[in-house]
Amino acid sequence: MDNNGAPKQKIVNDPVHGFITIDHPLLFKVIGHPYYQRLRRIHQMALASLVYPGAVHSRLLHSLGAYHLMCQALEELKRKGAHITHEECVAAKIAILLHDIGHGPYSHALEGLLVQGVHHEEMSLAIMQKLNREFNGELDLAISIFKNTYHKPFLHQLVSGQLDVDRMDYLSRDSYFSGVSEGVIGYDRIIKMLVVHNNQLMVEEKAIYSIEKFLMARRLMYWQVYLHKTVLAAEQTLVHIMKRAREINAHCHKNLAAFLQAPPCNEITDDIIDRFCQIDDEDIMMAIKQWINHEDAALARLCQGVLNRRLYKRLMQDEPFNETWVATIKENIKQKYGVSDAVLPYLVFTGMAKSTTYNKRTEPIHILYKDGTVKDISEIYNGIIDTDSSATVGRYYICWIE
Amino acid sequence: MDNNGAPKQKIVNDPVHGFITIDHPLLFKVIGHPYYQRLRRIHQMALASLVYPGAVHSRLLHSLGAYHLMCQALEELKRKGAHITHEECVAAKIAILLHDIGHGPYSHALEGLLVQGVHHEEMSLAIMQKLNREFNGELDLAISIFKNTYHKPFLHQLVSGQLDVDRMDYLSRDSYFSGVSEGVIGYDRIIKMLVVHNNQLMVEEKAIYSIEKFLMARRLMYWQVYLHKTVLAAEQTLVHIMKRAREINAHCHKNLAAFLQAPPCNEITDDIIDRFCQIDDEDIMMAIKQWINHEDAALARLCQGVLNRRLYKRLMQDEPFNETWVATIKENIKQKYGVSDAVLPYLVFTGMAKSTTYNKRTEPIHILYKDGTVKDISEIYNGIIDTDSSATVGRYYICWIE
Amino acid sequence: MDNNGAPKQKIVNDPVHGFITIDHPLLFKVIGHPYYQRLRRIHQMALASLVYPGAVHSRLLHSLGAYHLMCQALEELKRKGAHITHEECVAAKIAILLHDIGHGPYSHALEGLLVQGVHHEEMSLAIMQKLNREFNGELDLAISIFKNTYHKPFLHQLVSGQLDVDRMDYLSRDSYFSGVSEGVIGYDRIIKMLVVHNNQLMVEEKAIYSIEKFLMARRLMYWQVYLHKTVLAAEQTLVHIMKRAREINAHCHKNLAAFLQAPPCNEITDDIIDRFCQIDDEDIMMAIKQWINHEDAALARLCQGVLNRRLYKRLMQDEPFNETWVATIKENIKQKYGVSDAVLPYLVFTGMAKSTTYNKRTEPIHILYKDGTVKDISEIYNGIIDTDSSATVGRYYICWIE
Amino acid sequence: MDNNGAPKQKIVNDPVHGFITIDHPLLFKVIGHPYYQRLRRIHQMALASLVYPGAVHSRLLHSLGAYHLMCQALEELKRKGAHITHEECVAAKIAILLHDIGHGPYSHALEGLLVQGVHHEEMSLAIMQKLNREFNGELDLAISIFKNTYHKPFLHQLVSGQLDVDRMDYLSRDSYFSGVSEGVIGYDRIIKMLVVHNNQLMVEEKAIYSIEKFLMARRLMYWQVYLHKTVLAAEQTLVHIMKRAREINAHCHKNLAAFLQAPPCNEITDDIIDRFCQIDDEDIMMAIKQWINHEDAALARLCQGVLNRRLYKRLMQDEPFNETWVATIKENIKQKYGVSDAVLPYLVFTGMAKSTTYNKRTEPIHILYKDGTVKDISEIYNGIIDTDSSATVGRYYICWIE
Repeated sequence: MDNNGAPKQKIVNDPVHGFITIDHPLLFKVIGHPYYQRLRRIHQMALASLVYPGAVHSRLLHSLGAYHLMCQALEELKRKGAHITHEECVAAKIAILLHDIGHGPYSHALEGLLVQGVHHEEMSLAIMQKLNREFNGELDLAISIFKNTYHKPFLHQLVSGQLDVDRMDYLSRDSYFSGVSEGVIGYDRIIKMLVVHNNQLMVEEKAIYSIEKFLMARRLMYWQVYLHKTVLAAEQTLVHIMKRAREINAHCHKNLAAFLQAPPCNEITDDIIDRFCQIDDEDIMMAIKQWINHEDAALARLCQGVLNRRLYKRLMQDEPFNETWVATIKENIKQKYGVSDAVLPYLVFTGMAKSTTYNKRTEPIHILYKDGTVKDISEIYNGIIDTDSSATVGRYYICWIE
Repeated sequence: MDNNGAPKQKIVNDPVHGFITIDHPLLFKVIGHPYYQRLRRIHQMALASLVYPGAVHSRLLHSLGAYHLMCQALEELKRKGAHITHEECVAAKIAILLHDIGHGPYSHALEGLLVQGVHHEEMSLAIMQKLNREFNGELDLAISIFKNTYHKPFLHQLVSGQLDVDRMDYLSRDSYFSGVSEGVIGYDRIIKMLVVHNNQLMVEEKAIYSIEKFLMARRLMYWQVYLHKTVLAAEQTLVHIMKRAREINAHCHKNLAAFLQAPPCNEITDDIIDRFCQIDDEDIMMAIKQWINHEDAALARLCQGVLNRRLYKRLMQDEPFNETWVATIKENIKQKYGVSDAVLPYLVFTGMAKSTTYNKRTEPIHILYKDGTVKDISEIYNGIIDTDSSATVGRYYICWIE
Repeated sequence: MDNNGAPKQKIVNDPVHGFITIDHPLLFKVIGHPYYQRLRRIHQMALASLVYPGAVHSRLLHSLGAYHLMCQALEELKRKGAHITHEECVAAKIAILLHDIGHGPYSHALEGLLVQGVHHEEMSLAIMQKLNREFNGELDLAISIFKNTYHKPFLHQLVSGQLDVDRMDYLSRDSYFSGVSEGVIGYDRIIKMLVVHNNQLMVEEKAIYSIEKFLMARRLMYWQVYLHKTVLAAEQTLVHIMKRAREINAHCHKNLAAFLQAPPCNEITDDIIDRFCQIDDEDIMMAIKQWINHEDAALARLCQGVLNRRLYKRLMQDEPFNETWVATIKENIKQKYGVSDAVLPYLVFTGMAKSTTYNKRTEPIHILYKDGTVKDISEIYNGIIDTDSSATVGRYYICWIE
Repeated sequence: MDNNGAPKQKIVNDPVHGFITIDHPLLFKVIGHPYYQRLRRIHQMALASLVYPGAVHSRLLHSLGAYHLMCQALEELKRKGAHITHEECVAAKIAILLHDIGHGPYSHALEGLLVQGVHHEEMSLAIMQKLNREFNGELDLAISIFKNTYHKPFLHQLVSGQLDVDRMDYLSRDSYFSGVSEGVIGYDRIIKMLVVHNNQLMVEEKAIYSIEKFLMARRLMYWQVYLHKTVLAAEQTLVHIMKRAREINAHCHKNLAAFLQAPPCNEITDDIIDRFCQIDDEDIMMAIKQWINHEDAALARLCQGVLNRRLYKRLMQDEPFNETWVATIKENIKQKYGVSDAVLPYLVFTGMAKSTTYNKRTEPIHILYKDGTVKDISEIYNGIIDTDSSATVGRYYICWIE
């Protein structure tokens, strides 16, 4: 939408946050770039839509939403007296816009599997650096914030930390699109309570209950949605498809094939980036459609599973599964399908889903009291979050083709 | 709204739950009774609107909302095979409609103060019994459920228990009207997960995270809203007004005066019920308007405070206040206002606000697993709710007139 | 809520608009004044809560909400290049905060009846002028905007006009609290489309469909809520109560009595203002409670009607009622209650409810096209709003005591 | 989600309607079929997400949502005394689940283009008939309702008519996902007002304003979303891509190629259905990705346009464009790109977007008054909808590659 007279500005309609305003030439350049537009074709929640059919929103909308919250957070911090220059504002906004640019097809589900050994944040950085060369260094500051080498760490903490705008957006958004209303968080209140102290991002005392609830909402979203046993089974099907396809060198179109046939990645070259930015969720799904009649029965069966929602059977529980029982299941499947020991792990396997409610060590939440004292959220009197909350909780699962 | 052809039915528009349907003659009789209509004039959240100006909803709408959730819960339990007769359904609905009928002006804020020594649940029962005589025993079953003497305890637990529809409604509703969006609970999901086992109300295993979040939402609403230091200061102003008015026998209209002048109540007679049902929030507020120029300076000042939102100054903290500091404050106020030791406690006082996240002993939440085992929510593996959650948390406050 | 370091600022939680920020000393003075605080005790929607039980919100919250939209609208206009000084901003905000300050008990329902012959806008102005004297002229500019004597008419149009923030707030708010979700308007979009052209408030071309929908939402709210036949019957009961009480000089507390006994008001004196600002909805309801056993049977019956929701029977239709039929009804009621011809009009009467969808003459909506041309909304090609929409639509009603 | 003890039942979380319950074996069979699951991969709003990035929801979720509203509407009609058997209920639910099964890739945007000359409703019927053979006639009744040959026409009207549940769902849903809050309709109220009279679906008198608002919301959604000039430009890009690809016989994978190379379809054979059900939005987008470097410059440019959101420039207005001006534009583009007259229409073209607010002739809305009279909505006194509303409104557009 154009605007009469005033400097160029676009407004984007976001069902979660309302109108998002874009108003700087560098922002337009980044958003208009094919690398960024590609995020339209990557689902934010991978295959969660097989359980929550509304959850089909894209990474593009998530990163626009996080950008919007970044704008609000910066405004609030400035209003409270934090010194943030115009350039720093733009850079922080670019950093959040691009924080997920390195996500490949089906994001977390296939993380490290397509470009073997490369985590999405490493790839995000590589892509930002390539764009920076294209843009003649205009992204220097954004990259410095992203890498946390800038001398105002609170800017990095807004991009990546326990209270970053990334998390605030994806919890709200995933909740909105999946319909799991319980994931809703009071992000507007939390943003109003943000404060900078000693160059660190903190929250005011009166935000304590909102933070507790934020952590609880996150915990709930993990176990009820992201690690829901059926979502897990769907994503494991995907993982096993890609592994099997690589193993038997299954035919597919050349962009994808290049990655399946490549050895583990030691260095992210410009060429890799270029090809990486040409594939997205659709490339995977098209290959799956091709493979549903593949001569490799295991691959074919798994592909049919994703395509027509006939997933692994699955169980999830707090304790490990009885080993004898698992062995019997495996033997039965081996018999039933007449598969070799090499193929069996594609048809039945066990694993563990993990989540941490609060990690004090790596991503602390600091509460700033009116008298200037600072406490970690796990240390406050009568709080729900304590040192136990830092422990990683695991739940055991088993998946098998019936 | 009438309905062509079908049995009489009314639809009420509720902003929280949508359309509420009323479709039984006994329900119409109860709702149409002046005792019930009086709930229109009692604010659900007493003086919380002085902090959250949207929170002006009435007890009438809350009880209609709780009734609506009762209808849904009963449907769900029947669908799952619980044996509940039509009469039991109607009775449970009546019981929840009337569960708060015994609330007096400003509900909890003035609890036990107007009808001295009588708790609202005792009064609710007395009023239900009086109505029952009027209705020739039609409320027998409802009263039996309310008193928990009926042989299907799960019906009582729907009316009053950790997971009752009362709580589900008030958390959702208070959150909706106050604008504290973080109090929103997934009541529809919890209702879908309710189940009857051994005649007890329980929830299915997969509701665990929703229950945790429900308890967190409740915890948040207590500290952020119900026990918000300014809400507390407002309600303490009210309490001190009524105490002072009683002490100095301040003049007011006769309905209210009767209660102020009465001795502690030993027996709830029909006459008391009748007069009790003639007073509501407006009677208190009118008296306060009258007293703003009262010759008793303390009473006048407190009344101006409520009327024009000039409340006590207040502080709240986790630890007790320093006694010497409190003594100094008191002395200063005594000097400043030239009041006697007898009047001083109306101008400055300390106290403690208390809340419990989960009380395992009195109101347990039982989880029913698929294999038939039952666990208390505080006993589940890796849960947030543990035995510590049963402890009552108290915070210290001090209020004073500046 | 206080704020560390920064200039004093308060945040109010509004369920409709989220957080409302108040940040200027003059705003604090106005909001803290007893005249303004009194708006807490005047229902925005009078007796509509007898049909829509959630609709109990106060005029105070409405005026805070309108103030919030004013802040947004001014920001938007400034961003688009309109020249508005800081003083003009504060003044426009004061003007909208006080635009309804002259509403008496039950607002529109009793308009012109308590202070006979005085419309609420006249009273608002008188009160603003009195406050201005108290505040040593600080409200001069606000009053000038309110009276539309200021040389930037668009500021007045934001306070009072077809697209004013008053209307945007009350439609959204009344919809939110009543639960009539169809009254929801896209006020954020309309505000984004506001523009100043030739010192007049206009909307951009692309807002046309939003404006059409806004007018339709308003039309719907009128007929479905404000002029709902039962709401009308309730408010007419109130009107007839006050008329009867005045006629028979029914006893009530002195503040209210002064108005009932006063002759039509020729001049709004300071004394009248002072006494006017001491009465609110509660004074009326308390008088009604007193009169339910009044010896005047008509008055008693009407008062019971409001108190216990036993309202007039009512019919509403597009054509006038058959006169013979009306005469029969009247005769029957006269017989049944044995009343005189003088009392009969309190027990049965007819009338007309009126509403206009769009009034081109008094409150035009101007569309500004990209090429600079300006059209009235009723003149656009293929629009829903045409000259017919300016016609006042009336519906006939009859009310009677059964 | 399984359910202990009770008959099999699944609950689907829908962000728009809440929990959707599926509880009949035939419903499970239909939903589990690969033909139905394919709807996951067809966007409900084609390329509208290029303007409204949240609008990426699938046809599968829309049809589940319409099914949910069908369940509610049938309940309501039965409650009001309409005679509907259990079999009719199931059949009506199947009919709505499958009403859109015949949509191909990018639904309306490519309608009649892929399977040349076949409208999606014709294809839906063909697919339903094929499924019926597979299911041994279990869909007979559903098909009869879908074709409107069943003797209870109101069942068909619920599936397809001015007030069908299809429309109620898509307006609500498209509004929810796009964030155009103004498209929200009060579908719950309309459903509560549905009634069967003379075997026809009608609405009660008091629904009039809701219906008006429903038609306005639909009108707004058409012009603001579905026919938004940028959405139109995006979809026209798609259309021109497919036409050009067919014309030059551009290479693509065989499933899609088969359709591009096929002559106009005279008969929908089982073989066509089978191949049709193997392609979806992803097949189109993959072909587009392949063609972005195609040697045909026009095809390549259009494909880059869709992929990277570099769409046609576009204008839209009420009057036809000046022919001389259009000729100049065309000549400029011809020169600039050095294209032949045959290719030019892919780079610049004009057209007309059309919409009708209310079509009395084909899809009347009948209002049933309390006295039994029936009126068309366009005939009611003082209504907004009149005979003019039946006129189709057209707006002219021009698109060109810059």
